[in-house]
Amino acid sequence: MSNWIDISVPLHSGMPHWPGDPVPSMARALDMDLGDICNARHLTMSAHTGTHMDAPLHFVNNSESIDRMPLTATIGPARLIQIEHPDFIGPEELARHDIQPRERILFKTRNVWHPTAFAKTFVHCNAAAARHLVERKVQTIGIDYLSIGAYERDGVETHQILLGAGIWVIEGLDLSQIEPGSYDLICLPLKILGGDGAPARAVVRKIED
Amino acid sequence: MSNWIDISVPLHSGMPHWPGDPVPSMARALDMDLGDICNARHLTMSAHTGTHMDAPLHFVNNSESIDRMPLTATIGPARLIQIEHPDFIGPEELARHDIQPRERILFKTRNVWHPTAFAKTFVHCNAAAARHLVERKVQTIGIDYLSIGAYERDGVETHQILLGAGIWVIEGLDLSQIEPGSYDLICLPLKILGGDGAPARAVVRKIED
Repeated sequence: MSNWIDISVPLHSGMPHWPGDPVPSMARALDMDLGDICNARHLTMSAHTGTHMDAPLHFVNNSESIDRMPLTATIGPARLIQIEHPDFIGPEELARHDIQPRERILFKTRNVWHPTAFAKTFVHCNAAAARHLVERKVQTIGIDYLSIGAYERDGVETHQILLGAGIWVIEGLDLSQIEPGSYDLICLPLKILGGDGAPARAVVRKIED
Repeated sequence: MSNWIDISVPLHSGMPHWPGDPVPSMARALDMDLGDICNARHLTMSAHTGTHMDAPLHFVNNSESIDRMPLTATIGPARLIQIEHPDFIGPEELARHDIQPRERILFKTRNVWHPTAFAKTFVHCNAAAARHLVERKVQTIGIDYLSIGAYERDGVETHQILLGAGIWVIEGLDLSQIEPGSYDLICLPLKILGGDGAPARAVVRKIED
């Protein structure tokens, strides 16, 4: 039977967000406690808030936007890899996992989400690892904090390498409740026309050996 | 092989929205054409924009919010029913389809999305049909315009009946490309903490007889 596990972070006002982005707001615009006929929230946020995806268009002009992502990029088998390095995902560690063409890979690291504060030092994919993933022709990757690339340092380069190769990137996952192994993945980003990225909901289901 | 079909409407600035809701905006806040390091849009919209879901909390205080929806409500088999009536979904027409407990039902009507204007007269589920669906103990329903209930008239009552019974409601689908029959459905709303509803992405795959 299906036993889907949610790997999305909850969206709420004031949640951690990338420095410079607007503070996410999910405020009640209609409120039955105040006499309104119904409850209804209004949303204000960057497209790169919480669990979300980056399209190539995020860092590469004239490339694919999120509404044009093939659904197979994020619906299908995926492998969850536990990253041991405390600071970054590097090519040496990746080499041990023998990543195959078209794989969907989720990276579980020691990253944790603070309820409100953005963490500037999180485990990220360095530029050399990004090149390794491109060489291995991975289809889709995911990571358990707000960005696949570092805050400052080589974060821009990591994005340029991955997105320049047409790799689809899921960011801001909560992988704390799942163990390394094989899963069915479903990650559906909002269909923002011409969007460089979009908030998404992601779930997995263990594939029994 | 998987052959998923997108049944979500694209999100774009100025798209049709419920009267009184903010005009949806997906503006470019960072733009490589203007010299920025990347492209990034900021989003402003009601939680009930485009393809989205209503949680019971939308019309019933102290009831389930969208982040607490069981994933089985919107991941699993679903039946697409073609509605023949030009104006509304009524209990007489529904009775002919012999709806079973826990079914997920998508209603395809003659509704069409105008690119920018909200249509005040759309095929909707009337209050008597809502009561029929509650009696039949349906799990989840979907419709191909912005609201399951009418604009004005008995629209509030329809919502109160369905949501009061804990039925999960998908609104704003684009069913124009799919035919009546059996499908695998995946509809994933954003995980808005305590949310009365949320934008969603929805896909289906035909179940061959």
